Amino acid sequence: MGKDRKVIVLLSGGLDSAVCLYWALDKGYKCAALNISYGQRHEKETFYAHALCKKRKVKLTKIKINLPWLEGATSLVGKNAVIPDEPLKKIKSAGRIPSTYVPARNLIFMSLAASMADSTGAQKIIAGPNAIDFSGYPDCRPQFYKPLEKVFKEGTRAGACGKEIKIITPLIKMSKTQIVRLAVKLGVPFNMTWSCYSGGKKPCGKCDACKLRAEGFKKAGIKDICR
Amino acid sequence: MGKDRKVIVLLSGGLDSAVCLYWALDKGYKCAALNISYGQRHEKETFYAHALCKKRKVKLTKIKINLPWLEGATSLVGKNAVIPDEPLKKIKSAGRIPSTYVPARNLIFMSLAASMADSTGAQKIIAGPNAIDFSGYPDCRPQFYKPLEKVFKEGTRAGACGKEIKIITPLIKMSKTQIVRLAVKLGVPFNMTWSCYSGGKKPCGKCDACKLRAEGFKKAGIKDICR
Repeated sequence: MGKDRKVIVLLSGGLDSAVCLYWALDKGYKCAALNISYGQRHEKETFYAHALCKKRKVKLTKIKINLPWLEGATSLVGKNAVIPDEPLKKIKSAGRIPSTYVPARNLIFMSLAASMADSTGAQKIIAGPNAIDFSGYPDCRPQFYKPLEKVFKEGTRAGACGKEIKIITPLIKMSKTQIVRLAVKLGVPFNMTWSCYSGGKKPCGKCDACKLRAEGFKKAGIKDICR
Repeated sequence: MGKDRKVIVLLSGGLDSAVCLYWALDKGYKCAALNISYGQRHEKETFYAHALCKKRKVKLTKIKINLPWLEGATSLVGKNAVIPDEPLKKIKSAGRIPSTYVPARNLIFMSLAASMADSTGAQKIIAGPNAIDFSGYPDCRPQFYKPLEKVFKEGTRAGACGKEIKIITPLIKMSKTQIVRLAVKLGVPFNMTWSCYSGGKKPCGKCDACKLRAEGFKKAGIKDICR
């Protein structure tokens, strides 16, 4: 297997990133997974990221970053943060960004993945942002990732040596239903993924992540065995 | 003072970032400083970043990130890493990048600063990369920072709301001599800055950072009181 088959998969442990991991393995990429904790309210996803990697014999690198400015800037971080129950459609139609947006999270994730890629000789980063059935976060859209590849080209050792680090986002234009169908096709174990923003024993069923997931399964006509 | 006067200054505690802090204060910006430790061999710079902020009454946010893949990928991280003494001119003329290059470091720094800016309403990030008397790192050049602003525009809440986060690099086209002269003009206390890659009691005088600094002072005809 050539060196260009080496990839970094950003793996939160949510459904979308799990599909990305299985997609990459199915394509024959030699995967190294990266899981990043940034002080979110619970570590459930990380638990599942670990389980998925164990199952598929993929090396997982877990890192933790503590970003004090996030407290108060997003409802996903901080003990007193409250996950909103305002309908997503209402927020999006008003042109607002949900309070669950984490400032520059995907940029931080991509930067860390680029550092890992530039250090280990991986030439691709695979991640699971989605710009169709999504929460309206700006850093989940294709127009964010395109200039970022240019940044990688200009700012890394790989780029300086004529070996670019590419970003692959296989799910970015898929509906949640299409993602669920792809997951079934690839054999992703749904009970080893976690989407809910809250960290209870079972998913809350009320947050945006739960609602988007439930709708995807419903439309695909598939039973979710996460809970 | 309007909200647009709020800036994040990336402050390592080295000479260049200290000049940036003093430059920003001189311009009347309302500064918040950000210092990032990434497992480098010593914490001397961080000590001075703290001292500078105390002196100028600037709030300093210090964060630590542990990136396991850097061990072996740069000579600045790891207990067994050796700072090279190969002449910089030789490395650069051979088109190589020095072993002191830290993969995607400035991208990580910028991403974290963007997250802080997007969380706190700052619309500018001020940093001290230099592309003239420098070590040849790709992420110190203007062509790296330009597409990054586009990334900020597309991937942040600020950008989505029509308020861009700009990157200001006041020293990027200055010679080290010009930087030293500017430092004198702004009253930067040289004895409260640290450039050396090693963490001894005194600067080693042998590493690229020491050599570039010494040459700058020499050409400016100014005595360095760092040591």
